[in-house]
Amino acid sequence: MNYSDRRQFLKLGAAAAVAGPRFIDLAQAAENTTTLAKPAPDQASTAQNVTHTLARYLVNARFEDLPANVKKEGTRTLLNWVGVAVGGSGHETIECAIAALAPFSGPPQAGLLGRRERFDILNATFVNGVSSHIFDYDDTHLKTIIHPAGPVVSAILALSEYHPVSGKDFLNALVLGIETSCRIGNAVYPEHYDVGWHITGTAGVFGAAAATGKILNLTEQQMVWALGLAASQPVGLRESFGSMNKSFNPGRAGTNGLFAALLASSNYTSSDSMIEARRGWAHTISTKQDFSEITEGLGLRYETTLNTYKPFACGIVIHPAIDAAIQLRNQYHLTADQIERIDLRVNPLVLELTGKKTPQAGLEGKFSVYHAIAIAIIDGAAGEKQFSNRAVLDQKTIALRNRVIVTVDSAIRPEQVDMTMTLKDGRKLHKFIQHAIGSVEVPMTDQQLEAKFTDLADGILPRAQSQRLMEACWQVTQLSNASTIAREAVLG
Amino acid sequence: MNYSDRRQFLKLGAAAAVAGPRFIDLAQAAENTTTLAKPAPDQASTAQNVTHTLARYLVNARFEDLPANVKKEGTRTLLNWVGVAVGGSGHETIECAIAALAPFSGPPQAGLLGRRERFDILNATFVNGVSSHIFDYDDTHLKTIIHPAGPVVSAILALSEYHPVSGKDFLNALVLGIETSCRIGNAVYPEHYDVGWHITGTAGVFGAAAATGKILNLTEQQMVWALGLAASQPVGLRESFGSMNKSFNPGRAGTNGLFAALLASSNYTSSDSMIEARRGWAHTISTKQDFSEITEGLGLRYETTLNTYKPFACGIVIHPAIDAAIQLRNQYHLTADQIERIDLRVNPLVLELTGKKTPQAGLEGKFSVYHAIAIAIIDGAAGEKQFSNRAVLDQKTIALRNRVIVTVDSAIRPEQVDMTMTLKDGRKLHKFIQHAIGSVEVPMTDQQLEAKFTDLADGILPRAQSQRLMEACWQVTQLSNASTIAREAVLG
Repeated sequence: MNYSDRRQFLKLGAAAAVAGPRFIDLAQAAENTTTLAKPAPDQASTAQNVTHTLARYLVNARFEDLPANVKKEGTRTLLNWVGVAVGGSGHETIECAIAALAPFSGPPQAGLLGRRERFDILNATFVNGVSSHIFDYDDTHLKTIIHPAGPVVSAILALSEYHPVSGKDFLNALVLGIETSCRIGNAVYPEHYDVGWHITGTAGVFGAAAATGKILNLTEQQMVWALGLAASQPVGLRESFGSMNKSFNPGRAGTNGLFAALLASSNYTSSDSMIEARRGWAHTISTKQDFSEITEGLGLRYETTLNTYKPFACGIVIHPAIDAAIQLRNQYHLTADQIERIDLRVNPLVLELTGKKTPQAGLEGKFSVYHAIAIAIIDGAAGEKQFSNRAVLDQKTIALRNRVIVTVDSAIRPEQVDMTMTLKDGRKLHKFIQHAIGSVEVPMTDQQLEAKFTDLADGILPRAQSQRLMEACWQVTQLSNASTIAREAVLG
Repeated sequence: MNYSDRRQFLKLGAAAAVAGPRFIDLAQAAENTTTLAKPAPDQASTAQNVTHTLARYLVNARFEDLPANVKKEGTRTLLNWVGVAVGGSGHETIECAIAALAPFSGPPQAGLLGRRERFDILNATFVNGVSSHIFDYDDTHLKTIIHPAGPVVSAILALSEYHPVSGKDFLNALVLGIETSCRIGNAVYPEHYDVGWHITGTAGVFGAAAATGKILNLTEQQMVWALGLAASQPVGLRESFGSMNKSFNPGRAGTNGLFAALLASSNYTSSDSMIEARRGWAHTISTKQDFSEITEGLGLRYETTLNTYKPFACGIVIHPAIDAAIQLRNQYHLTADQIERIDLRVNPLVLELTGKKTPQAGLEGKFSVYHAIAIAIIDGAAGEKQFSNRAVLDQKTIALRNRVIVTVDSAIRPEQVDMTMTLKDGRKLHKFIQHAIGSVEVPMTDQQLEAKFTDLADGILPRAQSQRLMEACWQVTQLSNASTIAREAVLG
């Protein structure tokens, strides 16, 4: 009986299982013994040593090997992530999570960003990971839509308070974590995402395991086990989008990755090929597997350099319109009362997705191109504050948004926008956006990242502390102990 | 642009993502707003209210509603699970887990079975769940190959030490947890298992959430969220079989389910339809979805009554042979030296899977029908002790196993065996097994479960304590506080 026949038999056995005996259990017996269990190699299982190759790279990769632009982008990723995590820390979602977990947390090993509470490193990783994704304002690896920092940085930041690590090694771990998540994401995207997985949580758990495993100085074998235990704990389904469950996913992925690395560091074993095996992660969780994305060019090309940051706290589809509005506002020093009307030509998707004319709550404001343009002109920004419940009900904003006229035009690409402002003095101002700020083509400047950071931290951390925290992020590679960042990110 | 077109667009956008802007983010924007995001109903998404229907049943189901046979089988499940968890508690796997997690555990709220350490309830759930699956000797729901007690009982037992619960409510929660895991398993089995998921951990997280949520008195809405957060945390891939990662899965599933229920009890939200939605659990994780398995006959038919227990600590394929050997041994009071030879006719699978003639280690002994028969005749049992490293190297056992002759015969069904013993005095003894002990047709008796329990607990708990523990399990519905079981299962 060959393997395929046997599987058929087991299946038939299962169908009749209540009436008949449990021979389905044979499958288990078969796979518990290596000499009997392995199916004949087929096309799907020809990938060799993927998990080991990745693990070997991870344990050997040194900070000194990182190109300058990778160090720089890793540092920008850190700064952006700390800002959004601090920014989300006062949200109701975090109050719920803390109330639920406080009775069970271990020693106060790690701070909760933007707050006074301290949890054990596993629970702190969870809360900080949740916090960083609440506004959907964190970083994005555009090739996979992974928000890579969430699981990775939440885990290493908490770990840095328990296991001393230099700033250089911290940044190296951050980069390696992002490489791991994004490369594994590349291997299965887009099929894996299309079917319903929240790829930030499914690929992210590997990144968290890799980054914390690096800080814990795992051996290659232990790193293989950490990746295997990570593979066993994917997190997140897209159906949860719109609920607190969405930000749950990067938080739990961070905890799961750290949990995997901690167990592996005590020699808790897994399979040697959990990523690539026939009944391993990639084949089970996706119909596409391109293992070369994981194993090729390690240490030569870096997904980290493709990371991007949102300048505006809303869906990407209205970023070009906001960018146009702010550019015209700043160039001509405009105020709302100077403006007669704003004509906007957009791709049809813009109205389809963000066509709410009269948003009543802050979240609805994120789906109103009218509100977004109005508030961008009034405030010169479109951060979280510009999408508050108060902001969408502000009379001045409402008056201006009523003067926004949107026309759809299929000739306008989704990443473009064509804006014409008619001023009360008769002038017509025009702006065409080819690529909005925050895209790969027009990345946010360091200054813009700083402004975003300050805006998010304002009202949560004292301004002087927030500036020290920002400085600690920029200077991460100079820190003798990376836990400085965590210490500056919490209330005393 | 209809939904399907939009998805196509997003996909194309993704392919060109590095070169172009990140319009893929639109998918996220689309799904963050209910008014814009929902796809038109299609065949795959016609199932309505599956999660809510299950949650409503769970919050309303009372102990008094359970039929007597369900209470009885639930109690047998409890007894069997406690025995295997105590039995596994000294294993190297547990030492690794405890060493890794001890520095991070919260207050000593719950005992680790068979040991002196106490962890917070989340970490205790993990360790006890791992312990219960180490020998692969726990209960099996044959229709799905789920080992249902692992995630469920590990979670409610730990919780019972923190949140007082009567024995009646404890048993009710146990049954509801098993119903939840097995019904959800039924809905996706066998496709879900075939592709590579370890269904004990993927379906089991729901059972743990349901059972702990019941004890926490969640409202229907909170139970829906608990199931949703559980859906976000499936655990386990079949590739890990043969490593410590296999027993990791029920442990982590138990923790994840409890984690979900605790968050939901603090009103941490999820989607209302995580099980049935188009990008929810069942569609993402399986190519088969039969939601009627979840929603039909709730409170009328019970999967719990189909639970079974292994009499022998090895793969089911050699259970008929062991059963035959023990029956002849006991009937004729045989000793090894009386036996000239043993002829066995078996289905070809028996030799294919368990044909090792000279096992060198205990685990190999589980894959040797020769060893299993020999030790069964010598000891009258085939528990964990009979598959120790020492047992497979015992000279008397080796001498007897060399006198076992196995012939394959396709006419013998896998659940059958035909055994003829030739004694040195010339007698020929014959036994044909139609269904082995431990099958649904020939369930283990209560006495046999007790013997298995005692055998597992011996050397770990003092005999008097082990008997008290067994009695507490049998009398669970009489306990005013179910934590008596956990207290009797640990070392003082």
